[in-house]
Amino acid sequence: MEMTEQRDALIKEWLKEATKKIKESLKHDLEVEVKSSPNDLVTQMDRKIEKELVEKIKQHFPNDLIVSEEGFGDRVNKKDFEQKTVWFLDPIDGTLNFVLQNENYAVMLAVYEKGVGKQAYIYDVTHNKLYWGIKNKGVYCNEQRLPKMEDLPLAKGLFASNSMFLSNKQVSLNTEITKRAMGVRTLGSAGLEAVELVKGSTIAYVSYGLKPWDIAPGLVLIEESGGVVTQFDGTSVNILNIEPTIMATPTAQKEITELLQ
Amino acid sequence: MEMTEQRDALIKEWLKEATKKIKESLKHDLEVEVKSSPNDLVTQMDRKIEKELVEKIKQHFPNDLIVSEEGFGDRVNKKDFEQKTVWFLDPIDGTLNFVLQNENYAVMLAVYEKGVGKQAYIYDVTHNKLYWGIKNKGVYCNEQRLPKMEDLPLAKGLFASNSMFLSNKQVSLNTEITKRAMGVRTLGSAGLEAVELVKGSTIAYVSYGLKPWDIAPGLVLIEESGGVVTQFDGTSVNILNIEPTIMATPTAQKEITELLQ
Repeated sequence: MEMTEQRDALIKEWLKEATKKIKESLKHDLEVEVKSSPNDLVTQMDRKIEKELVEKIKQHFPNDLIVSEEGFGDRVNKKDFEQKTVWFLDPIDGTLNFVLQNENYAVMLAVYEKGVGKQAYIYDVTHNKLYWGIKNKGVYCNEQRLPKMEDLPLAKGLFASNSMFLSNKQVSLNTEITKRAMGVRTLGSAGLEAVELVKGSTIAYVSYGLKPWDIAPGLVLIEESGGVVTQFDGTSVNILNIEPTIMATPTAQKEITELLQ
Repeated sequence: MEMTEQRDALIKEWLKEATKKIKESLKHDLEVEVKSSPNDLVTQMDRKIEKELVEKIKQHFPNDLIVSEEGFGDRVNKKDFEQKTVWFLDPIDGTLNFVLQNENYAVMLAVYEKGVGKQAYIYDVTHNKLYWGIKNKGVYCNEQRLPKMEDLPLAKGLFASNSMFLSNKQVSLNTEITKRAMGVRTLGSAGLEAVELVKGSTIAYVSYGLKPWDIAPGLVLIEESGGVVTQFDGTSVNILNIEPTIMATPTAQKEITELLQ
């Protein structure tokens, strides 16, 4: 069995177990802690799920490295990223939604080999839908293959963003983008925003303040679906050190890059 | 049987039929037309569902008046609204989502007697959940009664808004509000935003450009749940002529009114 497929089978099994535990945890009170700011929360479930997944990855793939949100992973530098197999793990993406809404969050994993995204998994726990993809083999929702995204311009679709982008000061630029699009949408989970793009529900997602584990899985799915992920100036993202990012159809990405100059 | 309960049984039956037809329509191509602007769409389903519901209301309640989106209702003036029973009907709230995403839209109905909201229904078709409430009898999701909303300040919850608010020019004010809240969320359906509030998933929804049928059902559910609905200056809304509106917990509404002065 090819390495990608071996990992695929394991990851799907692990995610099934993890999401079951997360759903179960919502029947009880969550223990919530504040991290860097009052809007940056972590629960005991973020930590528990990450710890368990890190242990499983290490057990099966002892030579691989892990970049993860809650501190159970490794420190990975540029050289490691370019030479080794690196896993990106976000145990609960959209923790604010998880805590405040008990829905609209995702468990996310991605595997990069020598700097190239090979496979990615975004599990929409609330709706029990696993969005996943393997490089050159397509993007799927559960067992169903999704069509490639249509290359629509801003004027033909919905523009998604995150709180940090919408409440920043460079408003003249933002209003230009938001007005050109048919409407604005904001879910509060970078992973689920990437899913909206590959589903064709939105055509662009622009965000500030993302971390490697927020973006690594979405990048694989979006590129495999025909979309692009760039920095605001149109250049490639450095996944270990994320700057403000555009995920979009090729045409919408060009428009947004121009409007942001 | 009391009038409210008689209507309740009929409305639930009608909504069940209507939502079944809407779901069925998504299996085929939608016929989409542009109304006032490229972002103001209508489909054959908006018209069909409204026409059928208007006929049913007229058949059972020939003395009542109807305010509805697609033109099958009546012209209702202030005097009528204060003296008669008036129905508010939005066959598909969130038409952009319906057309572009095939999800995140609602069928909505509300009944006001002599200017007072008596009962309201917001059907989240995608998730098959009917949110409904009767004045002084509580708010429900399907058969389950929802607790009253917690009276949280902006700093303890998520702030929701609509595209017209987020892309307007008065940005200094908006950023003040969005920064004080824990995050920003935008669904693109006034009805589903009202549902988020009564579920406790957000604590405020501020919007420009709503119409009577967008707001009449949410107003009933939010007030019954312990929240408030006002204009930006804190005064009551005139439901026949909607100005920019705040729907929120009492504390968040006060904060937003102050920030908007």
